[in-house]
Amino acid sequence: MHVNGKHYRTVWMEGKTVLMIDQTKLPFEFKIHACHNYIDSCIAIRTMITRGAGAIGATAGFAMAQVYLENDGDEDFFLKARKEIESTRPTARNLFFAVEKVFDAGRSGADHAVEMAQQLAEENIEEARMIGKYGNALIENGANIATHCNAGWLGFVDYGSALSPIYAAKAAGKKVFVYVDETRPRGQGARLTAWELKNEHIPHTIIPDNAAAYYMSKGKIDLMITGADRVAANGDVANKIGTLEKAIIANRYGIPFYVAAPLSTFDIDCPNGDKIPIEQRDESEVFFQEGPDDSGMIRKIRVSNPGSDALNPAFDITPAELISGLITEKGIVKPGNEFISKLFT
Amino acid sequence: MHVNGKHYRTVWMEGKTVLMIDQTKLPFEFKIHACHNYIDSCIAIRTMITRGAGAIGATAGFAMAQVYLENDGDEDFFLKARKEIESTRPTARNLFFAVEKVFDAGRSGADHAVEMAQQLAEENIEEARMIGKYGNALIENGANIATHCNAGWLGFVDYGSALSPIYAAKAAGKKVFVYVDETRPRGQGARLTAWELKNEHIPHTIIPDNAAAYYMSKGKIDLMITGADRVAANGDVANKIGTLEKAIIANRYGIPFYVAAPLSTFDIDCPNGDKIPIEQRDESEVFFQEGPDDSGMIRKIRVSNPGSDALNPAFDITPAELISGLITEKGIVKPGNEFISKLFT
Repeated sequence: MHVNGKHYRTVWMEGKTVLMIDQTKLPFEFKIHACHNYIDSCIAIRTMITRGAGAIGATAGFAMAQVYLENDGDEDFFLKARKEIESTRPTARNLFFAVEKVFDAGRSGADHAVEMAQQLAEENIEEARMIGKYGNALIENGANIATHCNAGWLGFVDYGSALSPIYAAKAAGKKVFVYVDETRPRGQGARLTAWELKNEHIPHTIIPDNAAAYYMSKGKIDLMITGADRVAANGDVANKIGTLEKAIIANRYGIPFYVAAPLSTFDIDCPNGDKIPIEQRDESEVFFQEGPDDSGMIRKIRVSNPGSDALNPAFDITPAELISGLITEKGIVKPGNEFISKLFT
Repeated sequence: MHVNGKHYRTVWMEGKTVLMIDQTKLPFEFKIHACHNYIDSCIAIRTMITRGAGAIGATAGFAMAQVYLENDGDEDFFLKARKEIESTRPTARNLFFAVEKVFDAGRSGADHAVEMAQQLAEENIEEARMIGKYGNALIENGANIATHCNAGWLGFVDYGSALSPIYAAKAAGKKVFVYVDETRPRGQGARLTAWELKNEHIPHTIIPDNAAAYYMSKGKIDLMITGADRVAANGDVANKIGTLEKAIIANRYGIPFYVAAPLSTFDIDCPNGDKIPIEQRDESEVFFQEGPDDSGMIRKIRVSNPGSDALNPAFDITPAELISGLITEKGIVKPGNEFISKLFT
């Protein structure tokens, strides 16, 4: 998609270097971050320089390719490095999917690993584009759509999952308006989704996470679309903390609640949401906020009572029964074993 | 309640001056703010130097008394000043309740106005204490209690509404643990409730507003108690934005959801929640956050995408059907016209 009118991908590989938009600097600074080796790439995933299920997957694939480029024969090194990449973030299925594919391809040489990682990134783009195509059918002209966190092109290599249908709707000439959940504690909605929508000239407003029920109760929201970090075989979805709240509220007010995700996000070996590991992140993300002061200098400030503890689960599980449909690159399916298993045959 | 072991009230009047804990400075600085005239007091309410239904009511009562002290005979001035006080915050019922009482008392002279304002503050304390006594009966030893925003002693003159039962439970020797919703955009949970609980040595943890459903779905929360800014005749409740979300989620997981409020918060002339005016606050509260950097200097930073709009409703309406009971100074009642009307006979 576009940054000041110029097309970018979220993450890409040139030679041995993985390049990515630094998402910790957005929306205040647009900077490309370079990872010269797989350790750099692991740090970039862990510290959320790149984030979002699809972008994590693509970066992890590139990182696995870097492993083979760095050392062309040490089996112990390959296995150790694979474990390191896999331990960066525990929840996003796409990470494990990409690492496995590139790891296997690399058995026939580093070139094959790189080729596979590049191919996965291309597939990521095409899948996101198809999600947009199918999801667009759900959006009526004039629709008010809510979304949570960032499942836009920054969360993928391009297009995004939850936002891809919105981009497709706009491209098809429809009028849309987006309610963007702020998405505490890291503010991916207020910082990243709002930035994307602004760049794509899509009308939107940021709302505090607390305000979603207010607007749903007032009939202001026609449809909600989120992304996913992992979809279990029965259609339960792990996604950014707060997704469960929004799904419960949408259900109360009869608002369709869709989850957009490529098949690489599905974990059909995982029977249900109870089995998905939930990452617990550091409480400092709740205590502190970063951003520019009025001189433009980035500052880190405390926003909570010193001496009080905090809990910071990064994801929650939305049960399949609260989800109207899963938007995939193969079409929209109902969440449920019988429908999901067909996607993989 | 206590600040570093010393007893304080949230707001009080000495001579012609209204004194209050400056809640915009908490938890980083403990400072007493002085309002030398009714205009100062209006500004203090509007800018949330004092906030919370009970404290707003007490401050508005004192402000109305200041009006009579400032000018002992001009009817136009009295009426204009009353309107000014009433226009500071539109939602909290306690404000209108106190202004009316003190306005009427002042017809027989400024001394009577002051006396009434002082009496209302004393009643506020006694009502909050009784809410604690009745609410304590709902709390089992070892209970995990969730709360939203700050309805503690800072939101009243002392004790609080939602937190008063927790303080009473602790005083009765029970073990309690409190999940404190951060409460964006102004962070009254993370800043004020956490500060209160820390000062009273009550174990607690701050959670992002998005995480409430996660902990409720995991069976970690036994009971939720919030305050109220206005209770309609049918038991619908206006309270801090996000309360509706929590009530819907608690309902889904079968978690008792109580609202604590004195009768001065009830508006029996208001038939239901649809008729309660909802204050829309400035979007800058969503865009910016204030707090100390690591040198202790208070800084204001931007936390959202420049150029994107925001919406900032301060309250929402929780329908009576989602509320297990209303904890008042006259006991706990079911929300509903027949039970509420009995409180006023």
